[in-house]
Amino acid sequence: MKKTDRAIEEKICPLEFAVNAISGKWKIPIVWRINQGEKRPSEMLRGIVKVDRRVLNQQLKELEHDGILRKEVFKELPPRVEYTLTPLGKSLVEVLWKLNDWGESLLVEKNDSHC
Amino acid sequence: MKKTDRAIEEKICPLEFAVNAISGKWKIPIVWRINQGEKRPSEMLRGIVKVDRRVLNQQLKELEHDGILRKEVFKELPPRVEYTLTPLGKSLVEVLWKLNDWGESLLVEKNDSHC
Repeated sequence: MKKTDRAIEEKICPLEFAVNAISGKWKIPIVWRINQGEKRPSEMLRGIVKVDRRVLNQQLKELEHDGILRKEVFKELPPRVEYTLTPLGKSLVEVLWKLNDWGESLLVEKNDSHC
Repeated sequence: MKKTDRAIEEKICPLEFAVNAISGKWKIPIVWRINQGEKRPSEMLRGIVKVDRRVLNQQLKELEHDGILRKEVFKELPPRVEYTLTPLGKSLVEVLWKLNDWGESLLVEKNDSHC
């Protein structure tokens, strides 16, 4: 591999990693809703209409594993589970706003106002 | 749908659209390389080792259709094809840099320096 190629690979590497981390099904709606203040999986299930609990739990687990979410279990009866954004998760939300703005330009370009 | 739900849906919509537009296989490396000055599919085939021409052409076509790339055909023998970034493509690169920076934080968090 040439030196310039390696430089390009190194630049792409964190980017591909970032895209992989957020491109899982429902991950963006989940992060977005937690950012809006929804902390409990039951709230998310009501809000994200097409997701089922098994899929939601898997996505939450991956986001927690990536350090984007923090899970807190309250020892109550019945037990209560809440998710919040870590500092890494909060910085992701900042980038998602930029990507959202770009998506708006894309929708204008495609002359498509529905998703 | 409640009013607050609709507001959230509207916010997510361009974002999901943006993620869909860039999450196709090889799209990010393609945009990145064109940004680095590689204009011809044959250069990209040499640079992105694992991609084959059929897949590359499909991705280029989708990126052109989304208004991210502009295709120019030069009537020479043999015919020459070049791709450049549109203004929308250039603004995508700006956002990808932000996402790349976030990916670096993610790699540090995961203590993982390889992709």
